[in-house]
Amino acid sequence: MKLYTYYRSSAAFRVRIALNLKGLEAVPVPVHLARGEQAGAAYRARNPQALVPALELDDGRVLTQSMAILEYLDETVPEPALLPADPVDRARVRAMADLIACDIHPLNNLRVLTYLKGPLDQTPAAVGAWYGHWVRAGFAALETLVAAQGARFCWDHRPGLADLCLVPQMWNARRFEVPLDDFPTLVRIDAELRALPAFAASAPEVQPDAPAA
Amino acid sequence: MKLYTYYRSSAAFRVRIALNLKGLEAVPVPVHLARGEQAGAAYRARNPQALVPALELDDGRVLTQSMAILEYLDETVPEPALLPADPVDRARVRAMADLIACDIHPLNNLRVLTYLKGPLDQTPAAVGAWYGHWVRAGFAALETLVAAQGARFCWDHRPGLADLCLVPQMWNARRFEVPLDDFPTLVRIDAELRALPAFAASAPEVQPDAPAA
Repeated sequence: MKLYTYYRSSAAFRVRIALNLKGLEAVPVPVHLARGEQAGAAYRARNPQALVPALELDDGRVLTQSMAILEYLDETVPEPALLPADPVDRARVRAMADLIACDIHPLNNLRVLTYLKGPLDQTPAAVGAWYGHWVRAGFAALETLVAAQGARFCWDHRPGLADLCLVPQMWNARRFEVPLDDFPTLVRIDAELRALPAFAASAPEVQPDAPAA
Repeated sequence: MKLYTYYRSSAAFRVRIALNLKGLEAVPVPVHLARGEQAGAAYRARNPQALVPALELDDGRVLTQSMAILEYLDETVPEPALLPADPVDRARVRAMADLIACDIHPLNNLRVLTYLKGPLDQTPAAVGAWYGHWVRAGFAALETLVAAQGARFCWDHRPGLADLCLVPQMWNARRFEVPLDDFPTLVRIDAELRALPAFAASAPEVQPDAPAA
């Protein structure tokens, strides 16, 4: 398999963690978002949305959308499972994950920040405030849900779908200097997750396309 | 079951279609978003995110996030299926759905438009341009994917997960007067879907909380 990725893409980061957790190899193919490589014809032929990640299977078929890729990996390589067995439990874990994947991350990704700075002519301070606003709104709800669950990680003692979304979003929040004091449960869980080898090996700063420190 | 809903919420619209397709009854409990009812303590106790929809099961447990609810309904009431059987096919349908659910709808929902008008002090014209920009970006990619698939609906001859996302997003696009001429396949599929009873009965204008015409 090949993973079309960008070191700082939080959606690609999720998929890297899943591949590592499940012991799968995918050759990383960097797509430099900040230089606009995703908009070229070669990449658009693989993913008309011009977003990363995309997972190219050995037969050449290409899967897009990180959450769809994660479900595919969980269906085809069931262990370790990213979702619990019970349908209500599965729905609750997916809701925690989608809280990030639908309601935080899409508002704060590169193309949106570019639109705020360009067509909407917003200052860096206004863009930063926008970024923090959506992180705080989502994390406040997630903190409530995760604290009520009271587990080691977001749902239980195994890293699952919500955890794969949490760690990249926390990485982004720190990058944009969003204060995290109001989310002590998320901060604790994120720190525990980042210590796990599958998460550590997926971090932006250790990817082959990361700039030298 | 009870469905916490708002007639014009496109995420609630998706769930209404799924309930109708699967022949499930859920008592609608309207939450008036434009009046801010979702931010009240009573609703937040059910959904800390203060967003609709939420599905309250008969045992009192509450499920949130529309895509998680749709997966739950498909797992617990398998027929008619919202997803195909093959894992790659499932990933492709989920990717079409998430293209809307992650990359169009969250950028254009009420809380985001309110932020653009409020803190960012944008004119109605600028908000309209923002709205149309994300619809066009997403629909252009979806048109490519769906036209290549060449089926009656987004994926095959049965309404599926992507179709449940398409119809509400098309309804919203028309409401905001986004030109749809560049998306002939999506326009055709949307029209065929809206003629189906499960979709027609889920439309905003026929919900109990819709204002009188």
